Amino acid sequence: MLDGRTKGIPGTTEPFALEQIAEKGWNVLNEDLPLPLMVLKRSALDANAQIFGRYLAEHGLSLAPHGKTTMSPQLFAEQLANGAWGLTAATVNQVQVMRHYGVPRVVLANQLLGKTHLHTIDAEINAADDFSFYCFVDSVAQLQNMQRHLGGVPLLRPIRLLIEVGAAGGRTGLRTKAEAAALAEAIGNADQSQFRFAGVAAFEGVVPGIDKTPSLVSDFADLVVDIARALPTSLYAGLDEFLLSGGGSAYFDLVAERFKSIDLNVPVRVLLRSGCYITNDHGSYQSAQNQAKADPKRSWKSDLIPALEAWAYVQSTPEPGLAFLSMGKRDIPYDGGLPVPLKLYRPGVGFLPVGQAEIFATNDQHAYVRLGADTDWQVGDMVASGISHPCTAFDKWRFIPVIDDNYAVIDGVLTFF
Amino acid sequence: MLDGRTKGIPGTTEPFALEQIAEKGWNVLNEDLPLPLMVLKRSALDANAQIFGRYLAEHGLSLAPHGKTTMSPQLFAEQLANGAWGLTAATVNQVQVMRHYGVPRVVLANQLLGKTHLHTIDAEINAADDFSFYCFVDSVAQLQNMQRHLGGVPLLRPIRLLIEVGAAGGRTGLRTKAEAAALAEAIGNADQSQFRFAGVAAFEGVVPGIDKTPSLVSDFADLVVDIARALPTSLYAGLDEFLLSGGGSAYFDLVAERFKSIDLNVPVRVLLRSGCYITNDHGSYQSAQNQAKADPKRSWKSDLIPALEAWAYVQSTPEPGLAFLSMGKRDIPYDGGLPVPLKLYRPGVGFLPVGQAEIFATNDQHAYVRLGADTDWQVGDMVASGISHPCTAFDKWRFIPVIDDNYAVIDGVLTFF
Repeated sequence: MLDGRTKGIPGTTEPFALEQIAEKGWNVLNEDLPLPLMVLKRSALDANAQIFGRYLAEHGLSLAPHGKTTMSPQLFAEQLANGAWGLTAATVNQVQVMRHYGVPRVVLANQLLGKTHLHTIDAEINAADDFSFYCFVDSVAQLQNMQRHLGGVPLLRPIRLLIEVGAAGGRTGLRTKAEAAALAEAIGNADQSQFRFAGVAAFEGVVPGIDKTPSLVSDFADLVVDIARALPTSLYAGLDEFLLSGGGSAYFDLVAERFKSIDLNVPVRVLLRSGCYITNDHGSYQSAQNQAKADPKRSWKSDLIPALEAWAYVQSTPEPGLAFLSMGKRDIPYDGGLPVPLKLYRPGVGFLPVGQAEIFATNDQHAYVRLGADTDWQVGDMVASGISHPCTAFDKWRFIPVIDDNYAVIDGVLTFF
Repeated sequence: MLDGRTKGIPGTTEPFALEQIAEKGWNVLNEDLPLPLMVLKRSALDANAQIFGRYLAEHGLSLAPHGKTTMSPQLFAEQLANGAWGLTAATVNQVQVMRHYGVPRVVLANQLLGKTHLHTIDAEINAADDFSFYCFVDSVAQLQNMQRHLGGVPLLRPIRLLIEVGAAGGRTGLRTKAEAAALAEAIGNADQSQFRFAGVAAFEGVVPGIDKTPSLVSDFADLVVDIARALPTSLYAGLDEFLLSGGGSAYFDLVAERFKSIDLNVPVRVLLRSGCYITNDHGSYQSAQNQAKADPKRSWKSDLIPALEAWAYVQSTPEPGLAFLSMGKRDIPYDGGLPVPLKLYRPGVGFLPVGQAEIFATNDQHAYVRLGADTDWQVGDMVASGISHPCTAFDKWRFIPVIDDNYAVIDGVLTFF
């Protein structure tokens, strides 16, 4: 049930179930909803699912989309219905949310450790007939921590381990073949009813320097493949398939190309974990897409459509060339570039040219905008901005309306951050 | 009811009401709760309420604490019980939350405008016997927008208007006496059953350059007083009191000193809106407090105690001198400095020296830490960090446990962002 405590819901609304939202007849342009408001465009979500699905099929790739981006069970269900192999989580809490909504296969793309976390995972595995759980491991110390906390608990299905490889100067993940060999040995010696090797994983998005030199992604992917190849074949002798997983939302094509080159004595599933394809953006991911399209060596040539818009009022124009929008750090991402004004709507008049306008700073609840000399923004105007970094857009909203191309509210999603 | 969908709640917990949380017997140090976890220290909250309350009493000041900091109705209730005159909100949604929990007097320290927002406010005013609502106005255009959307709706009590004054190059608020005179005239001509002048307000925290030259705060406060003095006395002839409001959590003493100097033909209530005093922090607000203490001209000389700690696991130590904590942009503030590691707890061993350790970057779910040569952090250790900027700490959590000095969970708060 939603009520006026939830940001984005009008204060005069009686409590209602989300499924009834289309019946409200709300339209953003009619000022039926309070601002600021983040909206999701249905047509863009659908187009992106098609575009990305086609790419995966053409290249023989599997997808466990990163659920951390949206943390929205309704979008998870759409992704699974569209053929996702599973879902990816970044934290045990995210796994809990996915299990609450019945997601059958989850990759925790992170180190599992700690008492409560192990107890949660063993309880989830033993509570269901159909839950397959994978997680990353990058050190013997982490494996030992998991073993200690699991104790002698019998599991219906083992925790499937993906050895994480990281880049020097990067983030988590072991760095060398020697470390991988030591960890492989420890995994081989573990109770196989509790822990089972499942493959190798990496995240190329934090390789130092890739923003300037994307070819470093390919070098890193080669390192991952080398380490995977060097593992003792006994480690995966009984496996149906060897998972080789990588791929965020910016360089997944480069990773997939190298990962597909591996040849082992067992079938290999190349599993991407891209999360931001579902909405793309008007900032860093649009730039990454344009960068790929401009590079003749890249296979990713499609146009994902930005699905998120942040709406706010012009609340004050206190000096010439200076305006304030009624949205801030609580509403819009600011970690990968500030939002970009896209559209101006004047209630009672209609859409007008947005003019030259740049958001140059944010406070908790305000955005500072520099206007060009000929830009006509009036107090009470509504401005839609495109955002950069979908992950830190979704996490600022518990409810996001889904709109059609005329800004009518036809659905809504809840998030769990 | 809370369950495993909520960050901070163990996944194995049956749904329960927040009031039952103390009965769980949970202790952070016993790994009973998942990490990352933000915790609120009961003793610090109580100490800060006392320290700040004493300051207000000694200086004859009123407080409408900014609710945007915590957006936690339980903390609102404590603040009102401790003598707060009212609460401050930054958005209409925040007003809605406050009204849901029965807060009787709310200052919307922001421009009110827009169809749905006006309908919400008129509905709230007319639905209760005891709701006094104040908001900022900084332009005739905004007043006209409010008048248009309110239409002929009769109100049980008028919307009380605070003329907002802003600094040149700052944020919202009119800049000059001439603008104030024009707005005062428009307010005087408005339907007084709908809109009533109530005073003058400002926020000194966004005056350009104050981080280097705090005396600019005093200059700005003088401007606010000048503009208030120049208003036509007819505007407040019938008022019981004239509100003069300012004061965030860094320079409130400088503002209060100047505001108290005003002499009008009506009683003046100097109303602070500080929000962060309730938790303070280990970053920007601690620095502001130290700055005040070191300045012989400042009246604020107390030691508020940081009430927030962010706990996370050491999840990986992939290179010498490099460690990763299991918390990131979704869990901790990063807009006013990154968290500072304070404590190291090794399960089964106890507290150990945290050593030399600096968080130097964050991703969505990870913190990058540089360790000194002699710093001993092991995978599975728990680290408590102090944060900078309480507002962007609270807004990353829907539930925050309240702990005693031994890290036992004795209560919890819910937030509504």
